Amino acid sequence: MEHNIVITGTFLDEITTDIPSNNWGPEEWDRDFASMREMGIKRVFMIRAGFNRFLAYPSRFIPQKRKTYPVHQDFIRLFLQLAEKHGMEFWPGNYVGHNTRGEYFNDLDFDKTVADEIWEHYGQRSPAFGGWYFSKEIGRCEARETEIFLKLASHCKKISGNKPIMVSPYISLLPDVPRNAGGHIPEWMEPPMDFSLFREEWDKLFRSLAGGVDILAFQDGYIPYLYFGEICRIMKELGEKHGIKVWMNCESFDRDKPFRFPPINWNTMRCKLESAAEAGIREAITFEYSHFMSPYSLWPSAGHLRKRYMEWKNQPEQPVGLP
Amino acid sequence: MEHNIVITGTFLDEITTDIPSNNWGPEEWDRDFASMREMGIKRVFMIRAGFNRFLAYPSRFIPQKRKTYPVHQDFIRLFLQLAEKHGMEFWPGNYVGHNTRGEYFNDLDFDKTVADEIWEHYGQRSPAFGGWYFSKEIGRCEARETEIFLKLASHCKKISGNKPIMVSPYISLLPDVPRNAGGHIPEWMEPPMDFSLFREEWDKLFRSLAGGVDILAFQDGYIPYLYFGEICRIMKELGEKHGIKVWMNCESFDRDKPFRFPPINWNTMRCKLESAAEAGIREAITFEYSHFMSPYSLWPSAGHLRKRYMEWKNQPEQPVGLP
Amino acid sequence: MEHNIVITGTFLDEITTDIPSNNWGPEEWDRDFASMREMGIKRVFMIRAGFNRFLAYPSRFIPQKRKTYPVHQDFIRLFLQLAEKHGMEFWPGNYVGHNTRGEYFNDLDFDKTVADEIWEHYGQRSPAFGGWYFSKEIGRCEARETEIFLKLASHCKKISGNKPIMVSPYISLLPDVPRNAGGHIPEWMEPPMDFSLFREEWDKLFRSLAGGVDILAFQDGYIPYLYFGEICRIMKELGEKHGIKVWMNCESFDRDKPFRFPPINWNTMRCKLESAAEAGIREAITFEYSHFMSPYSLWPSAGHLRKRYMEWKNQPEQPVGLP
Repeated sequence: MEHNIVITGTFLDEITTDIPSNNWGPEEWDRDFASMREMGIKRVFMIRAGFNRFLAYPSRFIPQKRKTYPVHQDFIRLFLQLAEKHGMEFWPGNYVGHNTRGEYFNDLDFDKTVADEIWEHYGQRSPAFGGWYFSKEIGRCEARETEIFLKLASHCKKISGNKPIMVSPYISLLPDVPRNAGGHIPEWMEPPMDFSLFREEWDKLFRSLAGGVDILAFQDGYIPYLYFGEICRIMKELGEKHGIKVWMNCESFDRDKPFRFPPINWNTMRCKLESAAEAGIREAITFEYSHFMSPYSLWPSAGHLRKRYMEWKNQPEQPVGLP
Repeated sequence: MEHNIVITGTFLDEITTDIPSNNWGPEEWDRDFASMREMGIKRVFMIRAGFNRFLAYPSRFIPQKRKTYPVHQDFIRLFLQLAEKHGMEFWPGNYVGHNTRGEYFNDLDFDKTVADEIWEHYGQRSPAFGGWYFSKEIGRCEARETEIFLKLASHCKKISGNKPIMVSPYISLLPDVPRNAGGHIPEWMEPPMDFSLFREEWDKLFRSLAGGVDILAFQDGYIPYLYFGEICRIMKELGEKHGIKVWMNCESFDRDKPFRFPPINWNTMRCKLESAAEAGIREAITFEYSHFMSPYSLWPSAGHLRKRYMEWKNQPEQPVGLP
Repeated sequence: MEHNIVITGTFLDEITTDIPSNNWGPEEWDRDFASMREMGIKRVFMIRAGFNRFLAYPSRFIPQKRKTYPVHQDFIRLFLQLAEKHGMEFWPGNYVGHNTRGEYFNDLDFDKTVADEIWEHYGQRSPAFGGWYFSKEIGRCEARETEIFLKLASHCKKISGNKPIMVSPYISLLPDVPRNAGGHIPEWMEPPMDFSLFREEWDKLFRSLAGGVDILAFQDGYIPYLYFGEICRIMKELGEKHGIKVWMNCESFDRDKPFRFPPINWNTMRCKLESAAEAGIREAITFEYSHFMSPYSLWPSAGHLRKRYMEWKNQPEQPVGLP
């Protein structure tokens, strides 16, 4: 028996902000791509092409506009080469940065030029270039942001012969459930929720992305398990209504431990996957394989998470009951 | 020369609250039990049979009373089988949860029914069933709690042909010594302590548990080293007075580092063990082997802690002096 | 092509305060020294000879003055033996502790007696004894402290036949740039800095150490990258002016992640090394090899940091540009 949902993609995180580096070179990344492929991953998404002063590739454009650090490793080139070698797709992210007021800056022309640079120097030359991931994370329907998304999507599709666009929003509009380090959520902290406002707002968001965005992989990290099924069902329904494919971005790290972040408990990941599958979602990507599911991770428990996932993926489910 | 104290037991933590999961399956747990046995561990204590929505076994009763997550792994069954295989005793814990006011809930009938379920489906069928661990942690003599302990103890003994009961209280009534992340306790923070109030309160607690509880393994984690010897002596003395066996619950994780929790420094663990041995305590259990002493742990330094412990256990002590 | 800067030394941290122990014994330390030597390390500096109640060697003097824990491992002896075996120099640190008001205590006679003890029992007998590291960390020119440094330096040189003295101050007088866990510093948080006050204060500090201190290895951990080059140039210039050799204490751990502390990202370390090299600094030490660069570390990513460093050290630099 096959499960109805599988993990087919992972983010790649090398413009590290809050995840400690594995300090891998090309050889270690090659080994990791091989192990991803073997687990069933066919698409890799670069979390960002740059973050404030850190750049993931030797851009000529960005350093003219923003102060940046020297670039010693061209991750876009490396990841594209490895994607080709292992028969996978590579999707680059955008540059993300703060403006002088400390807010995320929005600049359509800037984003377009970065896309041009990536397409010209990498995308058009590689059969592994799969599409565009838009790194900015949204969770509400804010006109200014979704407008930029649509215009940028249109530009990216034009230059790339219509390659698809993916976004990965966070789930907003939930009751304020504290996720304290070190504890699980007791039941009294998950009050019954009225999903009508939620559905209404997300309907607007889907509508405002339709025609530009092809895939929406919602982040599952902040969804209390009590609401999980219903939220997956709403996402799936709205995706069908607006012609956007819905995937689950299934976090493989644990937000509920006293330190941030170890690999997640397999049991929790399995609950999330099965809950999404029941709602009709068929594809998951994860943030992210190399730290939280890889046998080569900084965290030795990551490889065991992968092992548990593979057992579940390959074996018929066995019901567990009292002996 | 043999040391006067040895580690003969460990907790098992798979209803993880604040410890990240090793993500082990039956094969990895088997390997770990073998390595515990080889270190001298003959008893394993399950930290909890359930915690809020998480269950360690596929209870039929608990989900009728509390919202719980699906159970994919029957840890009581697995741990009992491995205990049998490796010639060890298994002691289950209770279910621990919060009520709607966010307090730990106390319900004697609930606890009794869980004990019945565990005895009927696991305990009575397995020669490895060693006794009952009561998961609720107390540190003061509160009548309502100790009364429930006594009644539950009486029930558990009745159904199981008098299997013994263990509790593991935390040490209360110490001066308020801050345990700041990242630092050790400077001497000026450990003021001289008057132990008479301490002895009086613990005398009451031991008395209120006598006749029901057979073993008290006090948690050593919050005891400043300055008071360690005296507290061990008081525990030992009160245990003899009230007919309760006293063990040390020697924590193998470090509370004093900036992140919670790495394996403890061997030197600290050795100081604690030797201090307890001097006070006449002969047996220690630890919280817990699989994350903090196992060569297979998430933390690579855990295996080295085990190695240091084994050297100390097997070799005559060599005095260290200036060359 | 050779790089102009190399890592020739590391601290040794076994009086652990905020770094979790690797729990190594003599065999594991031997293996680690071999791997240090192979990376090019020729000097090891003990971070402290004692910290509050913890002692790194079985001092007879210190326990007469301060409450201390039993000593089970003589790290000065072990580290000296391993330094001899592997052809390296060993430099001991001092005892560091708090007084009853919670301040670091300063006591010249105490420090002298500890130095005497270390010289008599270890230093004079070992060809590997390289010099003295003064563990107290300063960052401003405070007369009381620098005076003690000078007097202690004079004493240590007298008893040891003029062995050199190293200090490792932190960089003070920077604009208050928050180093939030989990984020990088956006550009608007690094305001332009006027270095004249900085130069003036450090000129005083260098002057007050001249004649006693031989090497000043400044900590690079809190220096925003924007100021890195200029601060290295000022350090180098002041060192030449006052006859003190200037090294960089290049931290190999990351201060900017949500938990403290994983190994640093190689890219950041390389930026720091190259920036110092450009300013004319030729030698670096690191805090510290065994947790953050060793293949045997608690952190599996440490060995990869070492690998990246070795590649950089051994290979001609290849410019990275757009393909």
